[in-house]
Amino acid sequence: PVLVLGGMNVTRPNILLLLMDDMGWGDLGVFGEPSRETPNLDKMASEGMLFPNFYTANPLCSPSRAALLTGRLPIRNGFFTTNSHARNAYTPQEIVGGISDSEILFPELLKKAGYINKIIGKWHLGHRPSYHPLRHGFDEWFGSPNCHFGPYDNKQIPNIPLYRDWNMVGRYYEEFNINHKTGESNLTQIYLQEALEFIYSQAVAQQPFFLYWSIDATHAPVYASRPFLGTSNRGLYGDAVREIDFSIGKILNLLNLTGIAKDTFVFFTSDNGAALISAPMQGGSNGPFLCGKQTTFEGGMRVPGIAWWPGHVAPGQVSYQLGSIMDLFTTSLSLAGLEIPRDRAIDGIDLSPVILESKETERPIFYYRGNELMAVRLGQHKAHYWTWSNSWEELSQGINFCPGQNITGVTTHMQVEHSINPLLFHLGRDPGEKYSISVLSTEYEDAVNRISYVVQQHRDSMVPGEPQLNVCDLAVMNWSPHGCEKLGKCLTPPQSNPWKCVWPH
Amino acid sequence: PVLVLGGMNVTRPNILLLLMDDMGWGDLGVFGEPSRETPNLDKMASEGMLFPNFYTANPLCSPSRAALLTGRLPIRNGFFTTNSHARNAYTPQEIVGGISDSEILFPELLKKAGYINKIIGKWHLGHRPSYHPLRHGFDEWFGSPNCHFGPYDNKQIPNIPLYRDWNMVGRYYEEFNINHKTGESNLTQIYLQEALEFIYSQAVAQQPFFLYWSIDATHAPVYASRPFLGTSNRGLYGDAVREIDFSIGKILNLLNLTGIAKDTFVFFTSDNGAALISAPMQGGSNGPFLCGKQTTFEGGMRVPGIAWWPGHVAPGQVSYQLGSIMDLFTTSLSLAGLEIPRDRAIDGIDLSPVILESKETERPIFYYRGNELMAVRLGQHKAHYWTWSNSWEELSQGINFCPGQNITGVTTHMQVEHSINPLLFHLGRDPGEKYSISVLSTEYEDAVNRISYVVQQHRDSMVPGEPQLNVCDLAVMNWSPHGCEKLGKCLTPPQSNPWKCVWPH
Ligand SMILES: [Ca+2]
Ligand SMILES: [Ca+2]
Repeated sequence: PVLVLGGMNVTRPNILLLLMDDMGWGDLGVFGEPSRETPNLDKMASEGMLFPNFYTANPLCSPSRAALLTGRLPIRNGFFTTNSHARNAYTPQEIVGGISDSEILFPELLKKAGYINKIIGKWHLGHRPSYHPLRHGFDEWFGSPNCHFGPYDNKQIPNIPLYRDWNMVGRYYEEFNINHKTGESNLTQIYLQEALEFIYSQAVAQQPFFLYWSIDATHAPVYASRPFLGTSNRGLYGDAVREIDFSIGKILNLLNLTGIAKDTFVFFTSDNGAALISAPMQGGSNGPFLCGKQTTFEGGMRVPGIAWWPGHVAPGQVSYQLGSIMDLFTTSLSLAGLEIPRDRAIDGIDLSPVILESKETERPIFYYRGNELMAVRLGQHKAHYWTWSNSWEELSQGINFCPGQNITGVTTHMQVEHSINPLLFHLGRDPGEKYSISVLSTEYEDAVNRISYVVQQHRDSMVPGEPQLNVCDLAVMNWSPHGCEKLGKCLTPPQSNPWKCVWPH
Repeated sequence: PVLVLGGMNVTRPNILLLLMDDMGWGDLGVFGEPSRETPNLDKMASEGMLFPNFYTANPLCSPSRAALLTGRLPIRNGFFTTNSHARNAYTPQEIVGGISDSEILFPELLKKAGYINKIIGKWHLGHRPSYHPLRHGFDEWFGSPNCHFGPYDNKQIPNIPLYRDWNMVGRYYEEFNINHKTGESNLTQIYLQEALEFIYSQAVAQQPFFLYWSIDATHAPVYASRPFLGTSNRGLYGDAVREIDFSIGKILNLLNLTGIAKDTFVFFTSDNGAALISAPMQGGSNGPFLCGKQTTFEGGMRVPGIAWWPGHVAPGQVSYQLGSIMDLFTTSLSLAGLEIPRDRAIDGIDLSPVILESKETERPIFYYRGNELMAVRLGQHKAHYWTWSNSWEELSQGINFCPGQNITGVTTHMQVEHSINPLLFHLGRDPGEKYSISVLSTEYEDAVNRISYVVQQHRDSMVPGEPQLNVCDLAVMNWSPHGCEKLGKCLTPPQSNPWKCVWPH
């Protein structure tokens, strides 16, 4: 839509973020998935710009999503824990914290500029009333605050609710079923319909919008609707991917049909790498990369990235830009012609010069796990300051974030510090982080010097936020979500008894 | 070219095989190489048909090339050894054997039908006079009979010669240098010029041709010419890939410019998976697959495959057909309107229905190592009857065909037989062969039943050929190749002293 603002003709594109859950870099045909079952996403890439060097901000859901919406590393926006060193933390329903009112989410700014903002799917920035997405910049919501784990007994643990806007409309495994045995659930179809209806009505109203399509069919327990079950060569996980691919085809098609494709910036990505612990039935692929979700190896944090905007992004491009999910904050504001907040550190950069003019910028990628900076990428080099896959104790229980992969001194089962001599890899020659570069080489000296300088600057200016993921309490679970009375679905919470959450990895 | 034959209008397309050496499935952008440095090959795929399920016939050079040209498994055409069980063997210059006169190479048949056949690059089917490519169907040759190993001292071991047709024109590291320190060599440029000149003159003469462009820049020692050195993010190996990609762009462009693209069937593939033992500086990538060259895991035998034939192969297609390098024998004959020999077993199938009409066929893939059938793929299932990566002894010397990968009971360092209960994998859900399927499952029972039937049929009808790779002798090395007198480059062979070749893996 072209709006007239302050006498100037400013194009404010619609913004559509297609955020996948636990989908790996290697899950798309265009990124080398051997079964090649994503024709619509592959076509999207061929009509737009592919980002093979795109990263999330954290190797798991909640912190990554908080970083996307705030443009800031989880260490700044509070989505981390200090209960233990370098532990992944998120927002299960016993979490007390969530997104702080002091954080600015970019839909808040878009809203002031006249956008209508909708989230469809998983929120994951806290489920207590003060963390509700409609309090943080969104106008509409259809989806759930937490993962679709369950079923629970509604006595010890309540089932997770789904909301339409302020009110709950049901619970998983009650009104919204997922059959663990067959993997059947029609949720992606529901989320697709929500998206199509929203896009259609905004198009008719010529109303600029931000749609955050945050679906979760590829997060365990993985699901697909009946027409897609058994259609993939990749099992249930592939069925879910096929349904998503189909759905994205429908969404892009609607943008074309309504004539607003040229006014809509679309970006496809994932919140973290594939959960190899759930493979092969419930987990995806990280292609040639090392390990998966929960780790700061490439498999945990490199994610697919595709930009699509007919008439603005030239077709068939590949960008080598190191991109971050946090850049979607800055880029969205930039495309909407809005100022980036100046009262705080913003980690995302504006990708619009990359997308519109193929102008690339050197910038580092910081790989955090909880409160620790584990690794840094600059150019083709990645330096690990700490390595850890998970504990021997977890491993002995069969919990393995790097199945079939074992790099001595790299995929360590102790937290190993390498700050004196960081482990250095060249991700161009060695995307699998198998061959650490000799500390005696000039390549090592040059690269580590450059990276150390960046790390020093980063550390010197770092002001960590208030950690939000330290305290758990059964009383805060989804016992009586807003709107439960009307449905007769209110449950009685236990007495408050907070504890320091335990984060095992 | 349209020829009139027996009163019928028969189109006999030119045939151009672009055969890479040790290039892995994961080395092309279109197959997910993260640095995306193969724009010409990616374009070739987008204009043609991609084969993500394409296989070589053996996990190393010579047997794979013998299978390509004869359409027959190495166990049939003699390119194996019986000196030890399940050992990879090839044609170093001390080998006595080579391609038998009793084998029919498809250029022999093409020649009878009026084709001019040229091989540019590595032959590798024996270097003694009776094995010369011009005795086996080729009209022209520019290249070498063996790998570009060396430099040798020309006393204990002669340097490998290069031939133009019948006569040697020089030796590696003498007239044709490869700088091991810088990786510089202009051989790919020479091979490119040879190809362009040959194609151009056949186009002008309206002469149907078969060109076998069998270059070896991606086989260790890897090389690239000066303009490409340092241009890749992937190091020297990537430089070689970039030069090849550039060269293939030039070749396809010439086909377009001369107007013969629509008359030329082009197929791009590799003779075996990437040699991970040479990675990261001299070895490529097998993408998400297990292990590499020398093994019968997917990384050793699944290779890139692209068919290109403007006006005949529709653009942008992906074929799920299980294809084999041996199919190029049958397909080439079929496209040339020739009969497939009926006096012998041919393992290759005719891919022209796949390429021209997208008609797929179920067929097994047999994974041999030396004289042993190690594994069989049928549909999405792969059953391993034997597993072996290499010996503990080699591994202890740092020879590792599966660096960073270790699947207990799969990447074994003993030859382990599983004939009673084959190890079964589903390559759709589990392309990395990490999760063997329980013998107690019905999936196992069904799949193994189907595969066992195929294996039984295969074994019952198998007549192994005379093994060609059993005997070695220093006297047969390239001391005095034909034409050496003219160049003053004849060397004196030692006395014949044959021994049973030792094949360590
Ligand atoms: Ca996730
Ligand atoms: Ca080879």
